[in-house]
Amino acid sequence: MMKRKICIVITARPSYSRVKTVLQAIDAHDDLELLLVVAASALLPRYGSAVNYMERDGFKVAAKVFNVLEGENLTAAAKTTGIGILELSTVFENLKPDIVVTVADRFETMATAVAASYMNIPLAHIQGGEVTGNIDEKVRHAITKLSDYHFVASEDAKSRVIKLGEQPDMVFNTGCPSIDLALDIKNIKHLSFNPYEKYGGVGSEPDLSEGYLVVMQHPVTTEYKESRAHIELTLKAVNRINKPTLWFWPNVDAGADGTSTGIRAFREHFELPQVHFFKNMEGQDFLELLQCSSCLIGNSSVGIRECAYLGVPVVNIGTRQNRRLRGENVLDVPYDETKIKEAIELQLFNPKNQKSSVYGNGDSGKKIADILADIEFRFHKTITY
Amino acid sequence: MMKRKICIVITARPSYSRVKTVLQAIDAHDDLELLLVVAASALLPRYGSAVNYMERDGFKVAAKVFNVLEGENLTAAAKTTGIGILELSTVFENLKPDIVVTVADRFETMATAVAASYMNIPLAHIQGGEVTGNIDEKVRHAITKLSDYHFVASEDAKSRVIKLGEQPDMVFNTGCPSIDLALDIKNIKHLSFNPYEKYGGVGSEPDLSEGYLVVMQHPVTTEYKESRAHIELTLKAVNRINKPTLWFWPNVDAGADGTSTGIRAFREHFELPQVHFFKNMEGQDFLELLQCSSCLIGNSSVGIRECAYLGVPVVNIGTRQNRRLRGENVLDVPYDETKIKEAIELQLFNPKNQKSSVYGNGDSGKKIADILADIEFRFHKTITY
Amino acid sequence: MMKRKICIVITARPSYSRVKTVLQAIDAHDDLELLLVVAASALLPRYGSAVNYMERDGFKVAAKVFNVLEGENLTAAAKTTGIGILELSTVFENLKPDIVVTVADRFETMATAVAASYMNIPLAHIQGGEVTGNIDEKVRHAITKLSDYHFVASEDAKSRVIKLGEQPDMVFNTGCPSIDLALDIKNIKHLSFNPYEKYGGVGSEPDLSEGYLVVMQHPVTTEYKESRAHIELTLKAVNRINKPTLWFWPNVDAGADGTSTGIRAFREHFELPQVHFFKNMEGQDFLELLQCSSCLIGNSSVGIRECAYLGVPVVNIGTRQNRRLRGENVLDVPYDETKIKEAIELQLFNPKNQKSSVYGNGDSGKKIADILADIEFRFHKTITY
Amino acid sequence: MMKRKICIVITARPSYSRVKTVLQAIDAHDDLELLLVVAASALLPRYGSAVNYMERDGFKVAAKVFNVLEGENLTAAAKTTGIGILELSTVFENLKPDIVVTVADRFETMATAVAASYMNIPLAHIQGGEVTGNIDEKVRHAITKLSDYHFVASEDAKSRVIKLGEQPDMVFNTGCPSIDLALDIKNIKHLSFNPYEKYGGVGSEPDLSEGYLVVMQHPVTTEYKESRAHIELTLKAVNRINKPTLWFWPNVDAGADGTSTGIRAFREHFELPQVHFFKNMEGQDFLELLQCSSCLIGNSSVGIRECAYLGVPVVNIGTRQNRRLRGENVLDVPYDETKIKEAIELQLFNPKNQKSSVYGNGDSGKKIADILADIEFRFHKTITY
Repeated sequence: MMKRKICIVITARPSYSRVKTVLQAIDAHDDLELLLVVAASALLPRYGSAVNYMERDGFKVAAKVFNVLEGENLTAAAKTTGIGILELSTVFENLKPDIVVTVADRFETMATAVAASYMNIPLAHIQGGEVTGNIDEKVRHAITKLSDYHFVASEDAKSRVIKLGEQPDMVFNTGCPSIDLALDIKNIKHLSFNPYEKYGGVGSEPDLSEGYLVVMQHPVTTEYKESRAHIELTLKAVNRINKPTLWFWPNVDAGADGTSTGIRAFREHFELPQVHFFKNMEGQDFLELLQCSSCLIGNSSVGIRECAYLGVPVVNIGTRQNRRLRGENVLDVPYDETKIKEAIELQLFNPKNQKSSVYGNGDSGKKIADILADIEFRFHKTITY
Repeated sequence: MMKRKICIVITARPSYSRVKTVLQAIDAHDDLELLLVVAASALLPRYGSAVNYMERDGFKVAAKVFNVLEGENLTAAAKTTGIGILELSTVFENLKPDIVVTVADRFETMATAVAASYMNIPLAHIQGGEVTGNIDEKVRHAITKLSDYHFVASEDAKSRVIKLGEQPDMVFNTGCPSIDLALDIKNIKHLSFNPYEKYGGVGSEPDLSEGYLVVMQHPVTTEYKESRAHIELTLKAVNRINKPTLWFWPNVDAGADGTSTGIRAFREHFELPQVHFFKNMEGQDFLELLQCSSCLIGNSSVGIRECAYLGVPVVNIGTRQNRRLRGENVLDVPYDETKIKEAIELQLFNPKNQKSSVYGNGDSGKKIADILADIEFRFHKTITY
Repeated sequence: MMKRKICIVITARPSYSRVKTVLQAIDAHDDLELLLVVAASALLPRYGSAVNYMERDGFKVAAKVFNVLEGENLTAAAKTTGIGILELSTVFENLKPDIVVTVADRFETMATAVAASYMNIPLAHIQGGEVTGNIDEKVRHAITKLSDYHFVASEDAKSRVIKLGEQPDMVFNTGCPSIDLALDIKNIKHLSFNPYEKYGGVGSEPDLSEGYLVVMQHPVTTEYKESRAHIELTLKAVNRINKPTLWFWPNVDAGADGTSTGIRAFREHFELPQVHFFKNMEGQDFLELLQCSSCLIGNSSVGIRECAYLGVPVVNIGTRQNRRLRGENVLDVPYDETKIKEAIELQLFNPKNQKSSVYGNGDSGKKIADILADIEFRFHKTITY
Repeated sequence: MMKRKICIVITARPSYSRVKTVLQAIDAHDDLELLLVVAASALLPRYGSAVNYMERDGFKVAAKVFNVLEGENLTAAAKTTGIGILELSTVFENLKPDIVVTVADRFETMATAVAASYMNIPLAHIQGGEVTGNIDEKVRHAITKLSDYHFVASEDAKSRVIKLGEQPDMVFNTGCPSIDLALDIKNIKHLSFNPYEKYGGVGSEPDLSEGYLVVMQHPVTTEYKESRAHIELTLKAVNRINKPTLWFWPNVDAGADGTSTGIRAFREHFELPQVHFFKNMEGQDFLELLQCSSCLIGNSSVGIRECAYLGVPVVNIGTRQNRRLRGENVLDVPYDETKIKEAIELQLFNPKNQKSSVYGNGDSGKKIADILADIEFRFHKTITY
């Protein structure tokens, strides 16, 4: 029997971490052939060249698509999507996949969804049905309406996708595959690697043995003009806490330059004696880093998902994760220097929170691959009501 | 007070007919400035150069966007959308509209929706919430999820948009503005113009005084490989009926070349002594033509909407209008030469059907303009459940 | 030893005819691997789907690039080139050719030249150094300046490329490979096939046994607004001659729609009892058709090259072939109905003209392949003065 | 009389400096209307946002074109050009300029040249006919072949453009307009502004009163993989000299990331106690900075032109300015740390060199504007031989 050709398009570093176990499970599946397409910021050194990690992890890249248009504005995001459609349609025409899989809700993922659905290629979407309240949400639900199959991360998301008029038997709650990576490290107590040696980065190199903070704060698309102001509040709060801190640069996005400039300018003027900056980290190491940390600060979805599963305390800043289902490990704060500082202090006093399996049990990748092998092809659907 | 800048993007001849009264009402409104952008097939002679009608009707064109990529395949449709996003984002950046309005559900309208929503420009959608069962439906509901305001054509559509998770107070049942055009001609009994003289076209010029058929059949995106076979069935059926017939060329679409080739090849081999072919017709004249006709044949939405309002009998072929709310004037048939022929014969015996106002009362354009003048701007929303 | 990967990009039907023997010679060469990329109008049914002939001739297509933007204007030509660069750069990145070969001087060939030279891939150009006096000439010489190797068709062209500052040892007068195809048929006296049966087309089917005319007239880019007027003059002149005539549709180009519309409109109004229209013809058959014809009319370069070699009389209309080296077989006339008619009559009285080998001896394809196998790679050059 | 609409497209910071006096002269000319289009890196903060300087200098921007595709490779350069053509053709269609002016030889300028010449808009080129020996040279001479008018900077360049087959009466030696800016400051002895205060930047702030070095080194397209190694040699040499040094970041270009990374990495590991880094500087201030400096180091064309005029000693590194006409102020060295260091030392012992007017007398801008006002329009030409 011919193997089914499953084409997954990865456009950013965090998406790779999220679906790495899906790629592995497809690659390992007897009835499936993985066609991995790497695009957008996943190819760019400024954003950690996720493609290098994929290749090091043993994945063969079927095609690379450079489509990020430079420009510190929203127009560039629209154009990046337009170029993505132009390029991906050529890629799909050449690769002739049986199914295309698009991941999450970043603006560039719309390019994958439009190209595949216009070309009558069955389209599967990982991680639809969630609620966040920014441009990502428009994109996410629009992709749901373009998709034929839905791999969602929670019951909450499943019910929302069905309410959106999708056939219930095409909506699969597989849990979130990012949790799969956490499975192996959930009992680790001490870091098994030296992050400074392994990942370089810049800044001081504080001693991590007595606990440390991790910061990961992305710009919010609808607030991109404030991205510099927002990051400065977090920088000031963290500076006042003055504990060992590992800080990660933001994703490419409208506003990323504001965030980056904010960090760079702050570093020129303040010493930040306990802060080290990283551009990127392999997903597995990053999870281990979180597992061993005292608290995660910022607005990354990793705080909502993986940290729930691991029970790591989180200070979640601002609107980016609004209305996402969360565990008791999360404290929400607005953009306010003092409130950020106080929430960090509070979390540092907390014991490790209770763990939750609301986002899955660590076998999502395998579940998704099995469904992809089994599903009946279609690219034509109608709303259920 | 500054006038609100309302940018409407028209990408095809039928969309212009549909929203002409909206354009007029915006243009006439004291608080609104119309920015008319003409794109895609609305600019192309092959598809009737709708732009010429717009200019003749007195509208000023703010920008033209050539984005139709040639190629008899679905890839070209995807690429046309990609180029549309690239170009429209530049147009929006220069025009700086307060709101962008996108019309209906053709594949290229997605370009308008993506560009506007990624650029944080409030987006209004005319004619969401309907059900047809082809790629248009994926596109239509995806556009609903990208849009901030919804001008729908029926109560049925309104309830569907709300079910899709849109805030009820942002969903306005204004009726379908295409009906507005029919208002003036609903009592006409005889054609007030000679269509051969006014619109040229090719083929024989049968006498229309004893009644005539009108044919308008578009390719169906999900069946584009069959488009030539489908049109040939209709050609054969109409040829067997052998009554005076006015036939309209199809829209640009994946498959349009198949339809066009089918018609051209048929004409080379058969005489078609009672058929005349038109490339296009001004909306108002087309409605008058329908009003005075014995029957409309094909798969155009005009059969569902305007013909319901006017009470013109319709033979609706195939899947394109599936599940669209329809009046009693419509007989549905599959792609089958004999069944098409029999349905035409049946309709020719029918008296004119009862009229229905399910798609509005002829004041949709004004309603939409008033709401656009009044509405609070937003480009940021969240699903209601 | 690794075979050298030679990537040739074909963008139009006539270019394929021109370089077919080059493709064959590369394919047959022990040290070369042919990577055939088919793009632009060579993929489109409206222009004869040259790609089908390539595949039927046994060539494997490495990639297809759809990049023709519709629109009856020059802007579309520019955009077609822009899209071509976007797409071809991805193709080159994936195919990783050792050399890229670009053919002739159509506007889309600039896309090949820009993509390859910007990507530091050695670039060879077939058919530089000629003079015609329209936009093609700007493009042709600009491509010469981007190219590293030059395969020219005559001594005249060779000296011109060298004057343009190219190193003499990188300029090879191989003759024109289109002549190679004529080699086999130069002694044929009677058509070996029935063109109506083999190629279909439309119009009457005049008896060809007593001789016939062939017409091939393309729009001229710098005169595209007059393209319809120009073709009508030829139509009228040919109609007055009223001899059996085989007429070929034009290439895609700004203005092609004017030419096509002109032909279509004329056919609606005049009977043309002796004219048959073809969309396309395989190169070899077309040459045989010319060889057996009484006269070629129009502005095709085939009249200048192949007809010189074959000794077929030619009426060359207008400016398109200005200043191209020509044999005694050519009569030049302006856009003037009467002068066209008179020149045709004059040629019909002429005996077949003397043949000339100014454009080569029928072994150009092999010469070019041998040089490509032997040449030292470079992509970096400087002007010689 | 209608003013002639002169559209100039500026794609990079240095191009703006080069033609600023041309813009001023056009703006001030009674018969001309300036349409300034700003594109590519001239819009990007990473490269100094030249557009801000233009607006501060009082120029009105007619359109902005974002077309820089991110990616540390040559493919991105090709794509940037393709997107540029797509976007600029729309801009030209809307602005309807009488003439388009393209500047110099950066890869993106090809987009301007292709779009204008394909659209039959007369095209003028500033700074053709020069020789440098890298990809820029291919581009430069190709643009010459697309252009209708040529404003060259020296007799040497004029004769080369004529040899390229251009009509002599369309080639104007106006001198280089960048020299115009130097006119006002050629007698200045001491800096009139504090560069640290006025332009920020990073690094130490050495005392400049006893003289200082200026460094400006761009990546070379054909050597982009070595760009990091090359910049490191210069960094080491300058570090060994250990004099007050003002260093400018490179232009966007394939390889720019290598250069930037090289500088950043060096700064992480070495103290560079006498080096200050700038992102950009207004042209006039930069010239004053050069005028008061002891030596310019790197590969900028400013060393060849303005420094000749001003008599500033220059150490020119590597191949980028190969074969450009130069004055006695220039010492050429290869990529070699020791040779760079020795050449700097030599120049520091030299008295200020003799000045030369080989690149003009300071009135180029006015000359060009006058010719643009006077020239007869054409967009159609043929080679002279």
